Amino acid sequence: MKAINVGLLGIGTVGSGTFKVLSRNAEEITRRAGREIRIAMIADRDIEKAKKLAGGSAIVTDDAFKVASSPDIDIVVELIGGTTVARQLVLEAIKNGKHVVTANKALLALYGNEIFAAAQKAGVIVAFEAAVAGGIPIIKALREGLTANRIEWIAGIINGTSNYILSEMREKGASFADALKDAQALGYAELDPTFDIEGIDAAHKLTLMASIAFGIPTQFDKAYTEGISKLTREDITYAEELGYRIKLLGITKRTEKGIELRVHPTLIPAKRLIANVEGVMNAILVKGDAVGATMYYGAGAGSEPTASAVVADLVDVTRMHTSDPEHRVPHLAFQPDAMSDVAILPMSEVETAYYLRMRAFDKPGVLADVTRILADLGISIDAMVQKEPIEGEEHVDIIMLTHRTLEKHIDCAISKIEALAVISGSVKKIRLEELNRN
Amino acid sequence: MKAINVGLLGIGTVGSGTFKVLSRNAEEITRRAGREIRIAMIADRDIEKAKKLAGGSAIVTDDAFKVASSPDIDIVVELIGGTTVARQLVLEAIKNGKHVVTANKALLALYGNEIFAAAQKAGVIVAFEAAVAGGIPIIKALREGLTANRIEWIAGIINGTSNYILSEMREKGASFADALKDAQALGYAELDPTFDIEGIDAAHKLTLMASIAFGIPTQFDKAYTEGISKLTREDITYAEELGYRIKLLGITKRTEKGIELRVHPTLIPAKRLIANVEGVMNAILVKGDAVGATMYYGAGAGSEPTASAVVADLVDVTRMHTSDPEHRVPHLAFQPDAMSDVAILPMSEVETAYYLRMRAFDKPGVLADVTRILADLGISIDAMVQKEPIEGEEHVDIIMLTHRTLEKHIDCAISKIEALAVISGSVKKIRLEELNRN
Repeated sequence: MKAINVGLLGIGTVGSGTFKVLSRNAEEITRRAGREIRIAMIADRDIEKAKKLAGGSAIVTDDAFKVASSPDIDIVVELIGGTTVARQLVLEAIKNGKHVVTANKALLALYGNEIFAAAQKAGVIVAFEAAVAGGIPIIKALREGLTANRIEWIAGIINGTSNYILSEMREKGASFADALKDAQALGYAELDPTFDIEGIDAAHKLTLMASIAFGIPTQFDKAYTEGISKLTREDITYAEELGYRIKLLGITKRTEKGIELRVHPTLIPAKRLIANVEGVMNAILVKGDAVGATMYYGAGAGSEPTASAVVADLVDVTRMHTSDPEHRVPHLAFQPDAMSDVAILPMSEVETAYYLRMRAFDKPGVLADVTRILADLGISIDAMVQKEPIEGEEHVDIIMLTHRTLEKHIDCAISKIEALAVISGSVKKIRLEELNRN
Repeated sequence: MKAINVGLLGIGTVGSGTFKVLSRNAEEITRRAGREIRIAMIADRDIEKAKKLAGGSAIVTDDAFKVASSPDIDIVVELIGGTTVARQLVLEAIKNGKHVVTANKALLALYGNEIFAAAQKAGVIVAFEAAVAGGIPIIKALREGLTANRIEWIAGIINGTSNYILSEMREKGASFADALKDAQALGYAELDPTFDIEGIDAAHKLTLMASIAFGIPTQFDKAYTEGISKLTREDITYAEELGYRIKLLGITKRTEKGIELRVHPTLIPAKRLIANVEGVMNAILVKGDAVGATMYYGAGAGSEPTASAVVADLVDVTRMHTSDPEHRVPHLAFQPDAMSDVAILPMSEVETAYYLRMRAFDKPGVLADVTRILADLGISIDAMVQKEPIEGEEHVDIIMLTHRTLEKHIDCAISKIEALAVISGSVKKIRLEELNRN
């Protein structure tokens, strides 16, 4: 059978990894796919680098649009990143009847609905396993492996940079700033780390998983996003003393009122498997009504791990493209005419438990004042620790774990607590999830 | 689009779970699959139970062959178990042009080559996600999610009964016999627990994973199988003191000399994520050359978790059956004409590290004798502990961890050690795997 021809757009970290993996494992991949998957064209601004990589095996150009419109190309692999040129290129490729494979989470989180509709209309496939959690086949698990289930919730460590920083802070007692510097030196964090440490990258990935799990359009603009840059060593230590680890989790959950879609630092019981995922690794916990909890773990980034997902998509598309379009695996798991319009819940309506840390003057009556405020709002306290005052300090740290309550109630309680004369500064709030039944 | 008609053979634990999940989640499953998946016929010896389950929604019979040959049935779901009637039924269904979904690991481990060849000839699909690790979509991950990779090895906790017993022995200090009794009382172990505790069930599952990972025919007869029934509390405690957990692992590994295929109790560093998988849960660690290590965790058995995999296969088959047969996902991941004939290695040629426990008279020179035997065979010692003699006993326990060596060398060393006059009884050997690089 004749080879399927691939046009590769971008040969950065993931693009060059894709080329290398496809070349190195060509024999096994062909045995699996039933036909050769051949990179026939490569587009990159750096023509010399592209020529060197191709070694004469592919046509090289600096005009990616030429690849997206070439009649010789069956599948376009978009690994340029960004949401402007990449969007134009993907839409151009679709318009020209080409299947698309992309690792671009930002593009799909922002423009997924437009892109999938265009693909549907053109009868082509847009595959994006590499866009979420690198080499972990989580899109496939959600979209195909768990189709029997009503998905209840997903909770994932889906940003390796943040997880590395949190691991360093806990294991070595590093400050956030030092751990970030470390991560940058090791190439785990970019010079401008905003997308990673502020939870935006995780929210992109979570948006895609939520769509697939619940059959809803992509709605990145509705995601609540809070990063790790304000976490302190103290909070990590106090959490650990109480039996918890702090992880940046992407959580999406189906509730009667709507769908939760939120990224924020979260306390998790230390004995949970996912609490023990350290360094740059990713893990996604999925709760289905039939299967219960399943977890998927692996490298969430990096050249060859991400290439692993890109190539798996290439094999999938190669296998799938002869089937009737309406019998292919739907882009967002559910058939396009069977999407749900359930709304994303505002954060104020989300229910979870909380870790609160406040600094109080070491005076009688403080605890009575604070607990009264919580009780009046119907918030129960699960655990409370008052640290010994540090020598020479007139303040003490009070840490509380609450039972589950609505975010709007805790926020109301916090503003009342902060208004107390005996409380100094602001109250630190970190959400807490048991990750078992609910 | 008209419904796809399913014939359900067997309504035991998994069969009735499948019926329930399909009914409960019918709306979401249809939105995913693009058409209704309808159980049109049910066959079970217990007609009354079947009628009650069906509630008039399906034709009920006690003759499973009638379902396998019915012109009204598109997919036959075999959940009878066993390898005699089940084999005939599956072959009959295939002969009649029906796709088959089965959870029968024993059947496929023993007769997979025959069944897949028949399916290939008839142009139908045999799907078996439920045969390995219950609801964890590991077959899909190996066959489709990791197609880019040259799989290096797989190590899995794939028998929940054994894992439950080992967890009980470690956490509660229970004896094997008591932990087994517990497991039986809770329904985790059968009255005749042989298949589970002697590693046979795990070897069935491992055989299937090895075929898919390496593109080799199923070769259950070549698998090395050793269960947990001879493990003692002492070994579990000593392992823990040295920083290890003992798990019943199914391991398959590609080496230059051939493919390892083995099930046995294994020491794993306690800090590895998979070492912390407790109770009846399953987890499979897969090492690919591009993606690195990935892990898949979840319930490996039970009514609805297994049904989750059965129904996922039904959706897959529904989606796939319009594609050209040669473009479907191959049964064993690789195209049938591209299978490899790499041999399974005999256990004597397998290289791993070892935990050795021996009981010695508390006399000078014992260690010198033992270490001399190991040194002469080129076996290096990684750690050694001599326990204090128990009051009133004249023996002491000596525990050694060796570096990696061939099984034939360690077996030779053990017989020499056992021949020493200062050694009482036999030497306990448990294999040890680091599960990182190699």
